[in-house]
This record gives sequence, C-alpha cells and structure tokens, in this order.
Amino acid sequence: MHSELPRFRIAAVDRAIEPALRRKIDGKTKPLGALGRLEGLALQLGLIQRTLTPRLADPHLLLCAGDHGAARAGVSAYPQDVTWQMVENFLAGGAAINTLARQAGMALVIADAGVNRDFGARPGLIDAKVAPGTGCYLDGAAMTMAQAADAMTRGAAIARDIAARGCNVLGFGEMGIGNTASASLITHCLTGIPLADCVGRGTGLDDAGLARKRELLSQALNCWPQRPQFGRLPLAEGEVGRGSPPLRPAGEQDDAVAVLARFGGYEIAMLAGAMLAAAEVGMALLIDGFIVTSALLVAAHLAPEIRDYCVFAHRSDEAGHIRQLDHLGAEPLLDLGLRLGEGTGAALAYPLLVSACAFLAEMASFESAAVSGKL
Amino acid sequence: MHSELPRFRIAAVDRAIEPALRRKIDGKTKPLGALGRLEGLALQLGLIQRTLTPRLADPHLLLCAGDHGAARAGVSAYPQDVTWQMVENFLAGGAAINTLARQAGMALVIADAGVNRDFGARPGLIDAKVAPGTGCYLDGAAMTMAQAADAMTRGAAIARDIAARGCNVLGFGEMGIGNTASASLITHCLTGIPLADCVGRGTGLDDAGLARKRELLSQALNCWPQRPQFGRLPLAEGEVGRGSPPLRPAGEQDDAVAVLARFGGYEIAMLAGAMLAAAEVGMALLIDGFIVTSALLVAAHLAPEIRDYCVFAHRSDEAGHIRQLDHLGAEPLLDLGLRLGEGTGAALAYPLLVSACAFLAEMASFESAAVSGKL
Repeated sequence: MHSELPRFRIAAVDRAIEPALRRKIDGKTKPLGALGRLEGLALQLGLIQRTLTPRLADPHLLLCAGDHGAARAGVSAYPQDVTWQMVENFLAGGAAINTLARQAGMALVIADAGVNRDFGARPGLIDAKVAPGTGCYLDGAAMTMAQAADAMTRGAAIARDIAARGCNVLGFGEMGIGNTASASLITHCLTGIPLADCVGRGTGLDDAGLARKRELLSQALNCWPQRPQFGRLPLAEGEVGRGSPPLRPAGEQDDAVAVLARFGGYEIAMLAGAMLAAAEVGMALLIDGFIVTSALLVAAHLAPEIRDYCVFAHRSDEAGHIRQLDHLGAEPLLDLGLRLGEGTGAALAYPLLVSACAFLAEMASFESAAVSGKL
Repeated sequence: MHSELPRFRIAAVDRAIEPALRRKIDGKTKPLGALGRLEGLALQLGLIQRTLTPRLADPHLLLCAGDHGAARAGVSAYPQDVTWQMVENFLAGGAAINTLARQAGMALVIADAGVNRDFGARPGLIDAKVAPGTGCYLDGAAMTMAQAADAMTRGAAIARDIAARGCNVLGFGEMGIGNTASASLITHCLTGIPLADCVGRGTGLDDAGLARKRELLSQALNCWPQRPQFGRLPLAEGEVGRGSPPLRPAGEQDDAVAVLARFGGYEIAMLAGAMLAAAEVGMALLIDGFIVTSALLVAAHLAPEIRDYCVFAHRSDEAGHIRQLDHLGAEPLLDLGLRLGEGTGAALAYPLLVSACAFLAEMASFESAAVSGKL
C-alpha cells in the first residue's frame, strides 16, 4: 500500500446479538413489522452499538468545504466564489444546514478542507486546508497522492476528535462549487456505472450547461487513459452486514485513492477519511447525498466493512445518486427531491434514528402491557 | 341535507400571497428548488396561514378509538379486546404513538369514539363514546345516520376545543380492531376503486385470512344492493388548491354519510368531523395512513376544499392507501413501510413541517448573505 495512505481497521458488526434484538422488536405492542423501516434501523443501531438499548449520543454533522480547479472550466451553474461565500454563510448561521442541524439537535462542525480563500483564524471553522483548491483534472491530477492522503488523515483526526467528545452518530455534508462533477468522475471510475448516468444538473444547469458538463467530464476521462477501472463492489450483495467481504488488495486501495486524487475534491477526501475513522471507532454514519456518497465509495474500497455502519439518509434528486445507492445495495430513508448538499438530507433524516432508538427503549411489550396477541 | 348532519364552511386557501411566498423561497441561499418537497410544504403552510412566516403552534395529535361489530366475523388477525387493551396502553404511555408524539412535541389526545369497554372517568381519555362498538355490516348498517352525525359532531367539538388551546396543526390517528376492513369498504364506495384493490392484510393477515377478509367484504357490499356509487372526486385534478371544486349536492353529501354509517367505524366518523372542523378554523391537517385517509374521503365529499389544508404524512404499507392517495392527487412525505396506525406516520412526518417553517423563517437570502447568484 502507498506508504502515505492512512490505514483503518474496521470490524464488521457482530451479529451475535441479532436474534435477541429481533425478539425485542417483535415483542413490542404493534403488529409484526408494522414500524417498517424504523425496525431495520433499530436493528442496525443495536448491532453497531452491540446492545439491546442503542442510544444516540451527542450527534454531530461534519461539513467539509473545498474548491475545485475545474469550476473555472464551466462545470457548475455558480461561480467558484460561492464556496467561500457559503462558508461565511455557515459561520453566520444563515444556511439551510444551520437551520436543519439546529432543529435536529446536531452540532455542526465546519471544516475548510481546501477553499480558495484565506479565512484566517475564525471561531467555528476548523482550518484543515490542504491547499487553496484543487488543480483542474483537465490538465492533470486534481491533487497528488500525498495531498489526498493528507486530506484523509486530517478528516480522520477531526472524526476522532468528535468521537472523543462523546458523539456516537456522525452525519456528513459538503460544500464546493464543482463538486458534483468530481463526484460523477469518482463514481464512474469506482463503480463502472456509465459516465452519462453519473452526471446531473448539480446546482441547476440548464440543458446546454448539462451538455457542456458531460463533454468536459468525458474529456477529463480521456486525459487519463491509464485510469484504473472497478466494477461492482463485493459488499453490494444486499442488506447491512451480509458477511464480511474480503479486503481489497493493497494495490486496489492505492488505485481507489489514485482516482480520488485525480478527480479531487479535498472535501471529498476529507470526508472519506472521516468516515473511515468514525466507523473504526464504532459510530453510526449518516450518509447524505451524491457527493457524500462518492466519498463513501472511496472509503468502501479501502474498508468494505464500513457499509455496516452506514445509514443512508435520503435519495437525492441529483441524477447518479440513485445509481450509487443501487451499487451499494442501500435503501435510503427519505425521498424528498432534495439536491442542496451541505448535509441537509442527513439532518432531516436524523429524527428517524432517534425514533428507532426511542421505540425500542420506550414501548411496552405485549406481555408488559397485557395486550392480546394474534388470533 | 339530512337534518342531523353537521355543516361546515371551509374556504379554499387564498392564493393571493402565493407569488410573494415563492419569491421568498427562491431568494434563500440555495439553488432554486433544491429543498425539494420542503419548499412545497412551506408554500402550503404559508397559504393556509395567509402569511410569509408560517408558524406551527401547539401541535396536537387526535387519536380516536372504536370497535367494529365485524371484528367478530373474522376480518382481523387480532381479537376485538385489543382495541380497549391498546387504549389502556395509550393511557399508560406504552404504545408507539406515545413515544413518537412525545419525540415530535405533539400533545396526544385520546378519544373513545365507541370502544366496547366501560373505561369510567379516566385522566387523559375523552369520553366521546357514541355506542359500545358498531353493529356488523354483514347484518345491516354499522350505525344509524343519527349515530354517524353524532360521532362527527363530537369529533368537530374536540377539534374546536383543541384549536381553542392555540393549536394550528392537528395530526390524526386511530385504533380499532377491524377498521382496515371498514376503511376498505368506505374507500371502495366513495372512490369507485375496485374492492379488491382496497383490501389488504391490515395488522397482518396471512393469505388464508386475506382471502376470508375479501370474501366477507364482498358479502358486505352484496348485502346493500342499493348503495350509492361515487367516482373520481372533482378535487383530484392535481396539486393543492387548484381552484375551488363545486360543493357536492346535499343529496350526495347524505349519500357519503350513508356509506360511512353503513360500514361504520365511530372512530372514522369522529375523525371526519374533527377534520372538517379543523379545516374550518384554518388548521393544517396532518393525515396519517389508510384508515385516517378513509375518514378524509368522507370529509372531502362534504367539503372538497378541505384538500387545501391536508398534508399527507406517509405512504402506508397497507394495500389500498396508495390508491387513496392517487385518488386525492396526494404525494405523501414519507415512505417507510409503516402499517401501524395510531397516527404514527403523522408523528414521524411532523418534523418535516417544522423544517419547512424553519428554513423559510431562518435562512439568509442571497442578498442578505452577499452570496453570488447563478452565472
């Protein structure tokens, strides 16, 4: 393995407790299975925490921001300056994620992974800047392997720091003009899904803009003829934790990070590192939309067991996200036509995790409430 | 109109404020439309409250319980006693809806519409019992027109009482062994959807039980050859408040209540009355699953304008609910495979209403945050 890459040891969840968890869920005063997705969620959280009484502690949402060299080539409907302007908006409390994280009771952590702006020391902003924006993948690699490894390592450190505060559930969000383009390229290379199916309108390109984005991203691929090509992940067989897929060989791990480095996004690299570290310490991971899922694809290539720890918050309106979810065998909780990013879907889904733990902890059983069973 | 039926005057929402609401939504620091369903929800709540800053005040969830004569004929997987046992469970705080309403911050109101049990005076229970359970529709009408009108009137009084406390958003739930069967018959008669498509497994019938339920419900229809038959509602043309459909003629209103009386459910009648009164005073109505939606179908026959006030919480796993939603032109917020009733879907969806109001109230605009617009 590339010497600079951080290493993570993620254990698949231990399923020994599963029968007892299922008995507890089935004993609650409701028809069998009547709480639908909440029941599977309660099971998953119990497995992650190895307990019949999972509890969500000190929830956080980590939002990583970074700039993209390709933004100036015209892959986005908005100018690159919007990245730093939105970071200012986050710090001022005026963005959607501020409102939604506050409502969900999630502490919002903003990290500058690589924004093209000198913010100076600012309360509420973690300076984890690797560089002031990536290079443009039309001219070469967006970042070096060392920079990608650095961003992942910094992300891992942030996640460990959050865990040390007592947090056991971490949502992920991002900001970066041009980052749906990055996510499209990464998704294509790591999954084998045709590029055209991975490219969408991002923040709102019109038809001409979408056509231009597709053309630029095809060029970006063609500029790297020796790129590695992956197919279906070994972990995409079905539900959470169906067995422990074999670790990818070190060479393939290097290749996955090479894809990340080529098509960049310091915020994507930082998120991947943070996810890996969070799963390593046994947190539940709340995965947002298209860009966050592209970071998860990178992470899952390094440690497929991470899948056991992932709760998929929502199905985004960005074309390509549904293909990523299919690839991961994931069924998201919400389908609200969101395509905002920032972790907004994760914050909106968080109350459902609370509900899952609450029904498991609080509801009476048929026995305790003296309610008759089925005829 | 039948002299005993309560009358309701529901105004279609005034759309004069719609352009200003849309401008406010579009000016927030996010790509146009990027908050998906939350944006339509914010618009609807603004229209209902006739303000650019809708606020949710003192949310309540009204759960009506009643017994069904047909339960003893074998239309449910559970014995009739489960109705009163679950009412006791609600009063003791051990049911799913207790947990979920508490989490949502909704005050839970339990009303005995017609349970076959003498509870006596009990703190936390509204005694609105019309009779100790309905008659069996295999032997005649489940209730008289006067009893149906009585249940509706009592439901309306409860809703007005809740409104008087300062509440402006009311969710609806129900409990009653056998009530999916009632809801199936009512839905078939009021919509013209084939009976087979309206009948599902309820609390969990197996294949043989489902076949028996279908057979019994066919018999129930055949026992009433002179039943009225309705087709598509005039309000089912599309989104909220597309014009004001004409009031149904009084004869048709009587016919709709005759269907309700025939196939019963005091809890369904009470919910219909409560919904009508709640919309009359301008509350937002949070509609739960299959049975609650059958009550709404009755209400919508009396006053189609009620549709403007309805937020559809979720798509239930009970077969038939999706057909009801199609009929109403409704797109629910959640799709979690729930089939529990009690208003659980309404409680789970409530945080999304809070989010809709919050983003509208709290988010910065492009202008206020000095964020650049689209290229």
